[in-house]
Amino acid sequence: MGRPRRQDTRRTQIVEAAVKAIVARGYERVRIKDIAAEAGVSSQTVLYYFPDVEALLLETLSRLIHRFVEMRRDTADAVGDPVSQLAATIWAGLPAGPDDEIAVIYVSLGSIRRNPALRALSRALTEQQVELYRRILEAGSARGAFELRESSLVIAENLVALEDAYGLYIIEGDPITPEHAISRIATYAAAAVGVVHEDLLPASGGSRPADAL
Amino acid sequence: MGRPRRQDTRRTQIVEAAVKAIVARGYERVRIKDIAAEAGVSSQTVLYYFPDVEALLLETLSRLIHRFVEMRRDTADAVGDPVSQLAATIWAGLPAGPDDEIAVIYVSLGSIRRNPALRALSRALTEQQVELYRRILEAGSARGAFELRESSLVIAENLVALEDAYGLYIIEGDPITPEHAISRIATYAAAAVGVVHEDLLPASGGSRPADAL
Repeated sequence: MGRPRRQDTRRTQIVEAAVKAIVARGYERVRIKDIAAEAGVSSQTVLYYFPDVEALLLETLSRLIHRFVEMRRDTADAVGDPVSQLAATIWAGLPAGPDDEIAVIYVSLGSIRRNPALRALSRALTEQQVELYRRILEAGSARGAFELRESSLVIAENLVALEDAYGLYIIEGDPITPEHAISRIATYAAAAVGVVHEDLLPASGGSRPADAL
Repeated sequence: MGRPRRQDTRRTQIVEAAVKAIVARGYERVRIKDIAAEAGVSSQTVLYYFPDVEALLLETLSRLIHRFVEMRRDTADAVGDPVSQLAATIWAGLPAGPDDEIAVIYVSLGSIRRNPALRALSRALTEQQVELYRRILEAGSARGAFELRESSLVIAENLVALEDAYGLYIIEGDPITPEHAISRIATYAAAAVGVVHEDLLPASGGSRPADAL
C-alpha cells in the first residue's frame, strides 16, 4: 500500500506548488510549467496527476477554500465566550495582505465571470461563511450575550458582504489595512448584536488566526 | 472651429464603442480592432485619437465613472426628503445585471491588481461615493430626519463596502438580485440612521435611476 500514499503526497506537493504559482502569476495566467518548476518536477509529471491546468487549479482552489473554512470554524470553536467568538471569526476572515492564502482565494474567485466552474465553489464558500456566522449569532443570542437587532440571516449575510468588500480593498493594495477593515466591520456587528464595539476588536498584539494557515 | 468639434465627436464615438467592446470581451481582453469594428472605423483611426489601447481604456473607464458619479449625485439632489434621498442613492449604486454600465466599472476595476493605473481611479471613485453618502447623512441628521448611531464616515464607508460586495455578487451571476441586495443594504442603513427599514426600499414598480445612464 506504499504507492497510493506516495501518489497522495506527490499530488499534495503539486497542489501546494500551484498555490505559490497562483500567488506569483495570477489564477488566469499560471501555466503547467510554472507549477512544475515550483514543485521541482516535470510538466509531464504534473499532467500524470491532473488532466489539465484547469483541473489542477480547481482542485487547488477547492483545497484552499476547505482549509480556510476549517480554520475559521476551528477558530470559532476554540473560543467559549460568544463575543470573543464573533470577534475571532471576523478577524479570521480578512486577508493580511495581497500575498496570503485568503488573498489567493479572492483573486482566483475574481475570475468567476469568465469561468462558470468557479461559481458553485464561490457560492458554497459564501454559504458556509453565512452558516458559521448564523450559528455563532444564534448561540450567542440563546445564551443571552447578543440581542439580535435583525434576523441572524440578514446579519450574517451583511457580515460576509462587508468582509468580502474590505478583503478586496486590502488585497487590491487600497490604503486600507486589516485593522481599519476590522474596526468598520466590528462597528456594524456590534450594532447588529447589541454589544460594545471595542469588545469585538481583536486583542492588541494578538496574532491573526489566518497566519496559522 | 468645425474641426475640433468634429474631433470631439469622433473621440466620443470611439469611447462609446469601447464601452460596448469591454462589455462583450472584458477589460483585459478587448483589442483595438474590436473597438474599431464597434465604432465602424479603422484601427488606424482609433490610433489617431489614442496612442494605444491602454490610454483608450483608461479614458473610457474614467468617463464611465464620471457619468456614474454624476448620475448618483443628480439622483440624490433631485429628492428633497432625506429618507428618500438615501434610498434613491443606494438604489442608484447597484448594477441591474452583468451587462449594464455599472457592471462594466466593476469588471474593469477588477483588473486593479494587474494594472496600477486603475488604482487611483478606483480610490477616487470610492472616496466620491463616501463623500456623497456623508453629505446625505449629515444633512439628514441636521434636519432631524436621521439619528446617526455611528459617525457619518463609518456609516458611509460601510454603505459603500456593502454595495461593492452585493454589486459584485450581482454581476458575477450569483443568485442575488438587485432587490435582495438593496433590502440587505437598507437593513443596515435603517439601523445606522434610526429609520424604518421599509422606508429605505425603492417604491415598487419604480425604475432604477441607473437605467437612465
